[in-house]
Amino acid sequence: MFKKLLLVLTMVMMIFALTVSAAEKKTYNWKLVETYPTGIPWHDTALHFADTVEKITEGQIKIKVYPAGAIVPAFQVFDAVRNRVAEMGFAWPGYWKGKDQAFVAFASVPFGMNNLEFSTWMIAGEGMKLAKELYGKYGLVPLLGGNSGQEMGFFTAKPLQEVGDLKGKKVRTVGWGADILKDMGVSVTPLPGGEIYLAFERGVLDSAEFSTPFVTYPMGFQDIAKNVMVPGWHQTFVQNMFTVNKKVWDDLPENLQQALKIASLETQMWDIARSEKGNAESILKYKKEGVKFNKLSDESLNKLRKTTKEYLAGLRKKSDFLDKVLDSQEEFIKLYANWKELKSGVSAYPYEDYMAGQHYE
Amino acid sequence: MFKKLLLVLTMVMMIFALTVSAAEKKTYNWKLVETYPTGIPWHDTALHFADTVEKITEGQIKIKVYPAGAIVPAFQVFDAVRNRVAEMGFAWPGYWKGKDQAFVAFASVPFGMNNLEFSTWMIAGEGMKLAKELYGKYGLVPLLGGNSGQEMGFFTAKPLQEVGDLKGKKVRTVGWGADILKDMGVSVTPLPGGEIYLAFERGVLDSAEFSTPFVTYPMGFQDIAKNVMVPGWHQTFVQNMFTVNKKVWDDLPENLQQALKIASLETQMWDIARSEKGNAESILKYKKEGVKFNKLSDESLNKLRKTTKEYLAGLRKKSDFLDKVLDSQEEFIKLYANWKELKSGVSAYPYEDYMAGQHYE
Repeated sequence: MFKKLLLVLTMVMMIFALTVSAAEKKTYNWKLVETYPTGIPWHDTALHFADTVEKITEGQIKIKVYPAGAIVPAFQVFDAVRNRVAEMGFAWPGYWKGKDQAFVAFASVPFGMNNLEFSTWMIAGEGMKLAKELYGKYGLVPLLGGNSGQEMGFFTAKPLQEVGDLKGKKVRTVGWGADILKDMGVSVTPLPGGEIYLAFERGVLDSAEFSTPFVTYPMGFQDIAKNVMVPGWHQTFVQNMFTVNKKVWDDLPENLQQALKIASLETQMWDIARSEKGNAESILKYKKEGVKFNKLSDESLNKLRKTTKEYLAGLRKKSDFLDKVLDSQEEFIKLYANWKELKSGVSAYPYEDYMAGQHYE
Repeated sequence: MFKKLLLVLTMVMMIFALTVSAAEKKTYNWKLVETYPTGIPWHDTALHFADTVEKITEGQIKIKVYPAGAIVPAFQVFDAVRNRVAEMGFAWPGYWKGKDQAFVAFASVPFGMNNLEFSTWMIAGEGMKLAKELYGKYGLVPLLGGNSGQEMGFFTAKPLQEVGDLKGKKVRTVGWGADILKDMGVSVTPLPGGEIYLAFERGVLDSAEFSTPFVTYPMGFQDIAKNVMVPGWHQTFVQNMFTVNKKVWDDLPENLQQALKIASLETQMWDIARSEKGNAESILKYKKEGVKFNKLSDESLNKLRKTTKEYLAGLRKKSDFLDKVLDSQEEFIKLYANWKELKSGVSAYPYEDYMAGQHYE
């Protein structure tokens, strides 16, 4: 009888154990390394994404965000995720220009699409497919990580409206924009963010730009120079990207892969809204501090556009993949122009400005 | 001994039962009623949202989408959700103009913001707070449900570029735009979507508009009239909204409320991308079928803008809440203009078009 009791109890316990283990799901504790320090708004993007993922997976994926330097230096983020030092990364893809110029095409393109157009190309067009192909070569899976809109332009002591005025001056900028200015005879220095202020103040730089108004404002360039040469032709959008180690990604059940994709699109929308508002608010603050914005002449813009085209044509000759990506972007721009031109004329401007002819953006 | 065995077994079963019920979460099977039939792209928005919610809640919330007429007629969607005939609704808020004019301000505003600006105001500005206040009066909780961009404009047999040319003609349109045209001496008929084609073909209508290019294209107005008067000043964005019965919402655990909010933002981004691409593709198809697009003159646009301002001022006098909503929108437009004006000049147009002066949108 005791044996029978033991047998029944064992069976019941086995069923119990099976049921509980089926209900208990595997949890994932991930590290995310990023190229940003805690102080700048993009760090908050990583936190927002981690929070969204934790919410929608009910804690099945927990992502701990490590700012630049906490585990690896900023520019080792890409390789840290490849080598599985961290499961995820967060960065501006343009930082990986040295590995492949095509990364810049997913980060920001001079005279390229705006944040809405770029998001459309990525989500509904060919963009994400091409990004997967590029990152896939390095064992990484990309996810959209927010688009903060157009960069603001170049701070200068005097009001300048011609790009020719920069000739012989020392200008801080990076990426393809830097090469294009170089091709126009400007002397360019790609100083990292933290070093710009001092160099600018000491006169080592004659002009500097960093990012979107929202991101640049706290850096205080307006203390040194009260003029900005606009618009930000060199980066018409700023896309950030999350990356997941491909082996880590492939080991995930499909529902968690879906959750990450959904969190990524939610973060893209969240960041666009936050940044557009933040950019507008920052311009207002600049104006209150006496900053003047000087628009490049149409002639200067056309010169820059022409040099950009020639510069990119040169890069395209060196890389079939970059050529394919830029072809796809140009095809989308051509398609979208059909609609863009027809819908223009009703831009939302304050009433008086609209009546005064401010119909166009 | 048998009694003892029974006692032990009962205890084990009780523990077992408690454990299983703790692991098994409450599931929700919801009905969503919508104002749209299955054929049009906005039905797919509801399906996309339902799918996203099911994925991120792992089936804890299952939403079955019922197109217009399946449970309640299109225009009973609002009350069906209030009265808990269905847990959720999906509609263009402008349909509830009769209940409160303020609903139109969340649906589309003549000469209002574009889809990006409106999303920014809703997500990062005061929009969602005000929408909650409005819907809350009716026992409903609102969630963003996609923004399909600007409407396309008025089909006409002959090319027209002055709004004055519509005087004495019979035009199909709805909402605030209809009232504004009426104030300018145009005869307006608010026919429902399904009846426009026949009325237009038989000459009962001289001109008709329906929605964005993406949504309007399959309706075939281009078979009847080969000219379109653009831009779509009457609806510069088309926002759809999900609604949840407030009692149903309040009974949800917080994590599921969060999941619905996340799915809503994801759907907003998804629909913006899909629609912008779809709108551009549809314009291309229209052009291939010989449709000509005629831009309203600046003088006509200014006249319309002026009449819009006067019309809205009249409505604002009748409703403190609408006044508050439109004030908030105008404040945002004023703030955003600071940035919008400075970043203009680098619009992504095909190279030749850009060089030819197409810098602005």
